[in-house]
Amino acid sequence: MNSIEAICAGIGPLDSAAIAQAEARQQQLTKPAGSLGRLEELAIQIAGITGNPVPSVERNAVIVMAADHGVVAEGVSAYPAEVTPQMVLNFLRGGAAINALAGQVGARVVVVDIGVASAIEHPQLVSRKIAHGTENMAAGPAMTREQAHAAIQVGLDVVEAEVARGLDLVAIGEMGIGNTTAASAIVAAFTGAPAASVTGHGTGIGEEQRAHKIAVIERALACNAPDPQDALDVLAKVGGLEIAGLSGVVLGAAARRVPVVIDGLIASAAALVAAELCPAVKPYLIAGHASVERGHRLILERLGLRPLLDLDLRLGEGTGAALAMGVIAAAVRAHREMATFGEAGVSERDETD
Amino acid sequence: MNSIEAICAGIGPLDSAAIAQAEARQQQLTKPAGSLGRLEELAIQIAGITGNPVPSVERNAVIVMAADHGVVAEGVSAYPAEVTPQMVLNFLRGGAAINALAGQVGARVVVVDIGVASAIEHPQLVSRKIAHGTENMAAGPAMTREQAHAAIQVGLDVVEAEVARGLDLVAIGEMGIGNTTAASAIVAAFTGAPAASVTGHGTGIGEEQRAHKIAVIERALACNAPDPQDALDVLAKVGGLEIAGLSGVVLGAAARRVPVVIDGLIASAAALVAAELCPAVKPYLIAGHASVERGHRLILERLGLRPLLDLDLRLGEGTGAALAMGVIAAAVRAHREMATFGEAGVSERDETD
Repeated sequence: MNSIEAICAGIGPLDSAAIAQAEARQQQLTKPAGSLGRLEELAIQIAGITGNPVPSVERNAVIVMAADHGVVAEGVSAYPAEVTPQMVLNFLRGGAAINALAGQVGARVVVVDIGVASAIEHPQLVSRKIAHGTENMAAGPAMTREQAHAAIQVGLDVVEAEVARGLDLVAIGEMGIGNTTAASAIVAAFTGAPAASVTGHGTGIGEEQRAHKIAVIERALACNAPDPQDALDVLAKVGGLEIAGLSGVVLGAAARRVPVVIDGLIASAAALVAAELCPAVKPYLIAGHASVERGHRLILERLGLRPLLDLDLRLGEGTGAALAMGVIAAAVRAHREMATFGEAGVSERDETD
Repeated sequence: MNSIEAICAGIGPLDSAAIAQAEARQQQLTKPAGSLGRLEELAIQIAGITGNPVPSVERNAVIVMAADHGVVAEGVSAYPAEVTPQMVLNFLRGGAAINALAGQVGARVVVVDIGVASAIEHPQLVSRKIAHGTENMAAGPAMTREQAHAAIQVGLDVVEAEVARGLDLVAIGEMGIGNTTAASAIVAAFTGAPAASVTGHGTGIGEEQRAHKIAVIERALACNAPDPQDALDVLAKVGGLEIAGLSGVVLGAAARRVPVVIDGLIASAAALVAAELCPAVKPYLIAGHASVERGHRLILERLGLRPLLDLDLRLGEGTGAALAMGVIAAAVRAHREMATFGEAGVSERDETD
């Protein structure tokens, strides 16, 4: 655990001087003070994260981690597990939703096999398989503590490689049939909320199958008894390899002062694990959107985040985060490119009201 | 009025065959059905508007109309009227928020002087001044019926010129010190809502000045008695030249089967005028965002629109609409570029749940 502890120790608070300078700049731009609402907040947050009072958001990546889940044997998903590798190849060939949405905002898509059950070969695939899927958490721990730790290390390594290529903003996404079951179990474990209140319809199961999914999560929690005070224990017992990897991405990005846009239920569960391991990551997070999935709202509340978008999405892959990247890039661009009252020769407000 | 009536007569329903084809395509794309939520709805709506089941959104414009308001003499704004031409020049020099946000989505900004009180010269300005600002609506009609009609014709002309340059999607924005007062009066006139319930803080007035603004709007409604059954009467008596012009843009875009993204309170008031003149425009509209301004929600409800974004904006200029253009372009891009299950070799859902 030395590497995680060392990373956490290196994650400091936001840069208050850069925040103050960014706030002062916002007051001088040619608009009524505060009239750009959350765009102003985003620009100021990113100034604080990066330490640059007038930051840029141009080199962007969506890191998508894929893995399989032993709990699929319980019949928790509407789709067969073979869809995980099929969709990974779809990402690599550019045919998935995340490719289109990342393309729209000029972000590269980095696809990582961190635990897909079958073999996948592709020149652009980052192959860092820890295991051929997790074990069935309804019958025992999904992973060993060592596997969870190794998966976090993969996330640290992947984000480090992206920083080396140039990285102003990173979004996290995932693919893994069965992973809403793991994410819901993580939320229940950390918050103590009943499984029913954090378990949704995933890729589209009916009410009867959802009741079964809730029972499976309850069984996983009962047989593993994850300790909410020990985030790695929760992650290993009821998490997933892609969730662990994305936790590592969050930690690594924060350590490098790169803002992280989180996506829906599963990516947010990964951010929650990161924040439970290291609360200092929270100010580095931006919630891309509010998912339709039950449980997502609870995670965002626990992280103290308000989602940027609310578009009834429930796809994952990083799609909601990629859409939000467009808003974030626009916010930073306005902050950088707008003229000040002085530069533009625009009168400021009357002092007489 | 012949030209407006002729335009309205030419605005038909959406293309149901294109909608059916777009819906069928969405079912075949590699994602759980419905999982892209409002992005799917947008792609289908734009298919219906354009008549193209797989539309493109690449040639985009934000049309910003500027004008002054005689009612500023009543002291309703936090900013002096000289800010209107100053901001118009700021738009033309690229220093305003709308320039940055439109630039982020690759949309051109078209700036129209349709009624600024002072003279403005700039090679990129579309100069179509109908009057040097409106009259003070608290003392009589803001415009004559002929002026309102001529301003609508300017909107029709401007959108026609943009269609000639290539136009897949148009957003409407505005600049005009005092124009939240006019927009609130329009909403009150059409809906019968009390002025207090539709009047906000504009560019940032305090509570005392807001109470005064409400009284001014009540006076304008009382002395002009606009007839809500006669949209041109409402527009002329308590509207503004930029609002009238943008109503014309909405009508002209719908007639050319171009989707229109509306912005905050003032642009939405213009869309409301257009819809009261010609209810057939409604399905051509997309609400870009929910403004902080009171009264905006009431307009969207009356138009049957749900805003795409909610980012606490209250700037105008088309800024919320420009941000929404990024989401709309992403929606259409996913619809066009995503692989189908068959193309990607991805298994469809189990039939057994």
